[in-house]
Amino acid sequence: MPVNLSLAPAVPVAGVDIATVAAGIKRDGTPDLVLFGMAEGSRTAAVFTRNAFAAAPVTVAREHLRASGGEVRALLINAGNANAGTGEPGIVMARAHCEAVADALRVSPEAVLPFSTGVIGQLLPDAAVRGGIAAAASALGEASSSDERWRAAAHGIMTTDTAPKLTSRTVTLGDERATPVTITGMAKGAGMIEPHMATMLAYVFTDANVGQADLERALAAAVDVSFNAITVDGDTSTNDACVLCATGQGAALSSSDTSSWTAFVAALSELFRDLAQAIVRDAEGATKFIGVRVTGGRDAAECRAVGYAVANSPLVKTAMFAGDANVGRLLMAIGKADVHELDAARVRVSLGDVLAFEAGGIAPGYTEERGAAIMARDEIVVTIELGRAGRGPTERGPGGDGDGAAVEIWTSDLSHAYVSINADYRS
Amino acid sequence: MPVNLSLAPAVPVAGVDIATVAAGIKRDGTPDLVLFGMAEGSRTAAVFTRNAFAAAPVTVAREHLRASGGEVRALLINAGNANAGTGEPGIVMARAHCEAVADALRVSPEAVLPFSTGVIGQLLPDAAVRGGIAAAASALGEASSSDERWRAAAHGIMTTDTAPKLTSRTVTLGDERATPVTITGMAKGAGMIEPHMATMLAYVFTDANVGQADLERALAAAVDVSFNAITVDGDTSTNDACVLCATGQGAALSSSDTSSWTAFVAALSELFRDLAQAIVRDAEGATKFIGVRVTGGRDAAECRAVGYAVANSPLVKTAMFAGDANVGRLLMAIGKADVHELDAARVRVSLGDVLAFEAGGIAPGYTEERGAAIMARDEIVVTIELGRAGRGPTERGPGGDGDGAAVEIWTSDLSHAYVSINADYRS
Repeated sequence: MPVNLSLAPAVPVAGVDIATVAAGIKRDGTPDLVLFGMAEGSRTAAVFTRNAFAAAPVTVAREHLRASGGEVRALLINAGNANAGTGEPGIVMARAHCEAVADALRVSPEAVLPFSTGVIGQLLPDAAVRGGIAAAASALGEASSSDERWRAAAHGIMTTDTAPKLTSRTVTLGDERATPVTITGMAKGAGMIEPHMATMLAYVFTDANVGQADLERALAAAVDVSFNAITVDGDTSTNDACVLCATGQGAALSSSDTSSWTAFVAALSELFRDLAQAIVRDAEGATKFIGVRVTGGRDAAECRAVGYAVANSPLVKTAMFAGDANVGRLLMAIGKADVHELDAARVRVSLGDVLAFEAGGIAPGYTEERGAAIMARDEIVVTIELGRAGRGPTERGPGGDGDGAAVEIWTSDLSHAYVSINADYRS
Repeated sequence: MPVNLSLAPAVPVAGVDIATVAAGIKRDGTPDLVLFGMAEGSRTAAVFTRNAFAAAPVTVAREHLRASGGEVRALLINAGNANAGTGEPGIVMARAHCEAVADALRVSPEAVLPFSTGVIGQLLPDAAVRGGIAAAASALGEASSSDERWRAAAHGIMTTDTAPKLTSRTVTLGDERATPVTITGMAKGAGMIEPHMATMLAYVFTDANVGQADLERALAAAVDVSFNAITVDGDTSTNDACVLCATGQGAALSSSDTSSWTAFVAALSELFRDLAQAIVRDAEGATKFIGVRVTGGRDAAECRAVGYAVANSPLVKTAMFAGDANVGRLLMAIGKADVHELDAARVRVSLGDVLAFEAGGIAPGYTEERGAAIMARDEIVVTIELGRAGRGPTERGPGGDGDGAAVEIWTSDLSHAYVSINADYRS
């Protein structure tokens, strides 16, 4: 059961057509192939996994994105088989499937990006995928897809997810009387990540009319505060990808118009954050949704190091599962992060709004009861103040006592269900 | 239940006296305070946790070791309370307890090193510890302790351990007719580490007559291939310590005598490795003992990075628990390690002696059945060949195709029992 997973309803985006079919890749016969078609003039930006064992479709999608200069016309996604650990034959097949889509839609193969998620180490069932592509391509053709087609796609890309993750934002650029632009996105992923039925994938579309460089800039900004701030188990997939497409059918947008740009990036970041948090809320075995706020570092990198050390600690995560206000485990995790000369006496740790640790010891007003009351909740925020702002080489000036850097990482707890899901998966 | 935990019997070391008492620090009334007395002329070297929240006894032990120049005469160890996260009052108390030992044994306070393991964030019960010190000090006085006293001490330092970890090696230095020197050590620890009932501790004694610099060198060499090569959950304690004492009552040893030195360091390393592996075999919830061998790296650091990425991956560890030959998870974990430009096509992965992955894909002769047969065992070795030897900036020369660096990391699986032990600990 996801932890408080509730998203704003999704609105279709002009210039995006969708078809979802059951190609027979998943054994249970549920829909497993999604084809997005984007109108001529659309622009696409994407970021991919940094895993050295990047899957075949990641390699091909990178190639095609570069070759097309972002003028992408279709996204082909299959669930049930990751086409990873498949060597050269896997790459040949991913290219061939892009060609099949290109032939059907009369676009160039470089305008098609492939994505796969599922079992590692097996070749895709070629005939099934080709059959699915033909069926999906013939189902395309509407100028803009219905609500129902968006929902079907959000279901079609799922693997171990227990719920689809689909939502929208609208934002008015400039004059309040102008037509607002729409941003609609979907994501899948339940372990961060589960590499056997692998992967975090996100597809976000907007009708904004935006240039390639600005689109890439907006994607980078939104990913940084969303998908790059979540963790379920510290593991990274061979297939992770996050894609942002702009169809250009709506209002014009440029980073040179500061107020419109700021509004768009803020709305995009919110939507990305909602999708990223939805993945954590639906994390394998999750019973708690946990935010780790780290402030007062000399820079964002050290705040991030502490945040991930805490969020990925099995001992912290099992304590969260137990609702155990185990301040000692938090200290251990903070202390093991690679932060140069961290002064433990200046660190403050709070559970929710209850200060638990300061000046090198348990805070005077803290009691186990107060901590336990916070830990009983299903949403818990741990705040860690490092007390290094204005004290390092990057301090702001002679009087430097600024807030320093701050980051927030979201994670889930480590439960019996996580072990069951990941230990029993293939049996 | 530990996984195949069986150690060679322990032999007392001349010049080491031991007393173990129940001071009343542990609630269940079992022995919880151990005092080691070392003969005059003894030398001590030690390494401590790098955690920024190092406990009060770690701070004081570091100070005393430095001040005494290694001429340590007593080790005071309590279980049940870690004296961590206790700020200045904790440090004052650790110093006071060393003074109490020093007064009783008529040595200087700097010749006493304190160690604690147990609950974090509570002050030690001062009167109970002082009572225990008085009782233990009056029980000392034998020139060399009995087998029984060594066993009692190995029990007395335990917290969540299910079995004591105590063993010996003897090694003849030089002439075969010479009296062999004895090395006897004990360790505790079950999570690596469990910071609430915290900590990995190891105490190793030898009667060899060895200088301070050589003792430190031998300790560093032995730790590097033992305690620095194990992981249960990637977490690092506030209280970890590893101590090597040489009483000087036996044969003389110097690093300038290469053959004797090599024999001694080899025996010491074997004993350290046995104790370190014993901790993993007794790891919280362990059902498997797993070795991760990484070869063919450009240097030891990148082999180590890959080894720890695999050994600490929750997805790999749950697959091990399930006996699932999940090669995809191994690839994922290898690929996420921070190795610059790892070429996936050159990596080979074997389960036991079965080659599972090579040339970017599943190995031709590999079958799920062959993998499953390996994974059904309770001791599993995963071998990862990175294929980078002789290809990097550190290659040996024009013909460079050496073996490159190699490391082995030992770990346990992630089971339901691990979650239970760490989630239910305080309830």
